[in-house]
Amino acid sequence: MAGAAPVFVLVAPQMGENIGAAARAMLNFGVSGLRLVNPRDGWPNPKAAAMASGASAVVDGAQVFETLDAALADCTYVLATTARQRELSLPVISPGEAAAAMQSRVTVGERCAVLFGGERSGLSSEDVARADAVLSIPVNPAFASINLAQAALIVAYEWARAGESVILPAGDPLASEPPATREDVARLNDHIEKELDAAGYFFPPEMRDIMARNIRVALTRAGFTESEVRTLRGAVKALAKKGQKQ
Amino acid sequence: MAGAAPVFVLVAPQMGENIGAAARAMLNFGVSGLRLVNPRDGWPNPKAAAMASGASAVVDGAQVFETLDAALADCTYVLATTARQRELSLPVISPGEAAAAMQSRVTVGERCAVLFGGERSGLSSEDVARADAVLSIPVNPAFASINLAQAALIVAYEWARAGESVILPAGDPLASEPPATREDVARLNDHIEKELDAAGYFFPPEMRDIMARNIRVALTRAGFTESEVRTLRGAVKALAKKGQKQ
Repeated sequence: MAGAAPVFVLVAPQMGENIGAAARAMLNFGVSGLRLVNPRDGWPNPKAAAMASGASAVVDGAQVFETLDAALADCTYVLATTARQRELSLPVISPGEAAAAMQSRVTVGERCAVLFGGERSGLSSEDVARADAVLSIPVNPAFASINLAQAALIVAYEWARAGESVILPAGDPLASEPPATREDVARLNDHIEKELDAAGYFFPPEMRDIMARNIRVALTRAGFTESEVRTLRGAVKALAKKGQKQ
Repeated sequence: MAGAAPVFVLVAPQMGENIGAAARAMLNFGVSGLRLVNPRDGWPNPKAAAMASGASAVVDGAQVFETLDAALADCTYVLATTARQRELSLPVISPGEAAAAMQSRVTVGERCAVLFGGERSGLSSEDVARADAVLSIPVNPAFASINLAQAALIVAYEWARAGESVILPAGDPLASEPPATREDVARLNDHIEKELDAAGYFFPPEMRDIMARNIRVALTRAGFTESEVRTLRGAVKALAKKGQKQ
């Protein structure tokens, strides 16, 4: 599965910390293929390794190239990540569209790459010209400031979502928690109603049915579990008996 | 639009830098309402302001609260962000599902909140018990290491995406019925808890907190309306007084 994921290509990245942070961001969503084009401070970079921490396998496995063309040599579909509009006549797609496009390509054996620019100036038009499409993260036009690791995070997140290549945290804990049956809820309701009758709650008498129905609606819609109904019945019982102890 | 966006609530955040980074992440996707519960280093925090940079309006506008209940008092729908499984009987939803749920709620005037825990230990079970659902970011089970700003980034990103295509809840009978605020639900819960304490319900004593939390979860998740909470408080009052009349 990791072999099929796109490679993330950092073009002229500057600080090692940011390379390490990008590696962490990627691995959170199961993307582990990292390529570097002309990293400013050379390679390997101890700061990248330190920042990568648990994601050090991504940093250790990074491939380094002198040119973007060399880095993309074996790729068939390339996206250039940028927040800005470009003059180039390239389609502009969202992270979600990018993920879907890459997922359908990797299933037929293609190798996809996503380009990310350096911290200072991003991708040059020359870099973008190597891409099939521009991947644009739709940030707030009044405040666009995502960093390299955050851009990588969003692209990897969408990749994982599109492919469900990451196992979702095993669903709904309520699924294993037996829900109350309608009968359970009816008994809870009848119990409350009986105690409320005894307490003289329903007043004036002509409003009784409407008031009782409102309570039934609230309790039924609440979606209690079986054990919650037991708990609440115990609570009602305790409340109804309370005065007798005083 | 910004007024309608969810508020992001940081519970016991530690480093000011991380608060500033979260503010930046939020504003990239148009989320600007920030609330802080017991920030470790007090408030205002110069490090948060420095890190926020262009997003300083978010940091400057942050509201600070002593308790989570106070921070959520005016909210009607609350999500707790966590990567971990919980013992609580709460639905677990993805960031995309969370965004869709919040979008349909804000269109009918509800106020939504998303909780994020502190750097060291995240949200406590007591915090999560205040939520309608758990928002789980589906990270790689073998490497889960997203930080506060990255979690905020993904939730805000999904929020902005969902806003591009809001589907109004068709024919939801609740749409015209104002939902209970968190403060309403907290008062109902406190009322019940007080009466149950007086009734000697919580036994054995060492189980008190867990029993009380189970009731809180059931009542919070129930999605009561404002008038249902009033009705139920009246019912609790009547039950608690019942014995005295006998």
